[in-house]
Amino acid sequence: MSPSRNGHPSAKPAPKAVVGRVSLYLRRLESLQRQGQAKTSSHQLGEPFGIKNAQVRKDLAFFGQFGRPGIGYDIDDLILVLRSILGVDKDWPLILVGLGNLGRALLRYRGFQSRKFHIVAIFDADPKKVGQVHQGVTVEPLEALRRCVSANKISLALLCVPADAAQAVADQMIGVGIRGILNFAPVPLAVPSHVNVVAVDLSIQLENLAYKVQGSLDGVSWAG
Amino acid sequence: MSPSRNGHPSAKPAPKAVVGRVSLYLRRLESLQRQGQAKTSSHQLGEPFGIKNAQVRKDLAFFGQFGRPGIGYDIDDLILVLRSILGVDKDWPLILVGLGNLGRALLRYRGFQSRKFHIVAIFDADPKKVGQVHQGVTVEPLEALRRCVSANKISLALLCVPADAAQAVADQMIGVGIRGILNFAPVPLAVPSHVNVVAVDLSIQLENLAYKVQGSLDGVSWAG
Repeated sequence: MSPSRNGHPSAKPAPKAVVGRVSLYLRRLESLQRQGQAKTSSHQLGEPFGIKNAQVRKDLAFFGQFGRPGIGYDIDDLILVLRSILGVDKDWPLILVGLGNLGRALLRYRGFQSRKFHIVAIFDADPKKVGQVHQGVTVEPLEALRRCVSANKISLALLCVPADAAQAVADQMIGVGIRGILNFAPVPLAVPSHVNVVAVDLSIQLENLAYKVQGSLDGVSWAG
Repeated sequence: MSPSRNGHPSAKPAPKAVVGRVSLYLRRLESLQRQGQAKTSSHQLGEPFGIKNAQVRKDLAFFGQFGRPGIGYDIDDLILVLRSILGVDKDWPLILVGLGNLGRALLRYRGFQSRKFHIVAIFDADPKKVGQVHQGVTVEPLEALRRCVSANKISLALLCVPADAAQAVADQMIGVGIRGILNFAPVPLAVPSHVNVVAVDLSIQLENLAYKVQGSLDGVSWAG
């Protein structure tokens, strides 16, 4: 194994699709580790996700030289390296802004907890919600954002407010030092270049599914 | 405008990324239409999403020849064509299986309703939840799945059950005729080739964000 400094040998950050697949390989490695396995192969890493072994090798090569021909990957080592590359070798405190149904679902979402993402503060503009306790966390007014973010050195936020409030709340977050926003509001955000946004638009994902299913339902051979 | 049969001129279905961007262009077109505008340009379509006009033209070219040089796109026409291509020119009844917090959030998710996706039935394995009414829909036991799917000719399902139940429930869905699954369970599904799955793994999206933010926080120039 020879990842370079911080495990990032390439001159540019890896594309989103590569990072997404590396997250999947990490899950697979952790599952194999729990089963007591010590070594694995590109084939075994990609197989549950339908990813070919050449693609697995190519994805990992973005970050360094891992594994040995004929021997494969050492599972323990590769888990440590990939966690470091993805930034999930440390805890990430999160704030959640907007406590509607989706916000409440995210508070209980086990996937975050198991990946070292912890919601440490909740904010809502509705005075009736302020002071409520959810999953052990007290809802605060937006005015408390600055103090909380700087006291806890928080970089990441879940934005779950209605579409028409999203940009204003994002601006507030960025103003107090938030660097990454997972945006659940179905609206694009304008942000400065030092801030990253990942948009989670469920209706776009559903349209993607409808598009594929429509093709198979029509009996269209796609050979127009 | 000269899209070919069903608006699919190419021999293959468009890649997921293209379909996702076309969903964004459609939202932009609808917003411009509401503002009373009649014509638009590639630049105007891509601009709010940070997509360059060459990319907009390339994406649309997957589906046909639209717009005229120097004149641009007719907004009403392009909306109709893109809705037909994406399959959102008709209603899509959905079933939702698994009424936890996320399931409840999805029931109220405005984004689905505004895109012609309607949750018409809810299923849960928990006898305590069966019979409850949420957003006007009565929760049914999984035994009622077959009758409901065939009576309402349903193709799409939202799968919101815990990870360890996901594959078994997916198998049941597919057995009664479901063709597309939006999978919220943080586990990959094995499905036959005529079934499409789009996975919504929020922790993967959050890892992607953490990866980007980590890069900027470290002060790493990525020039390893």
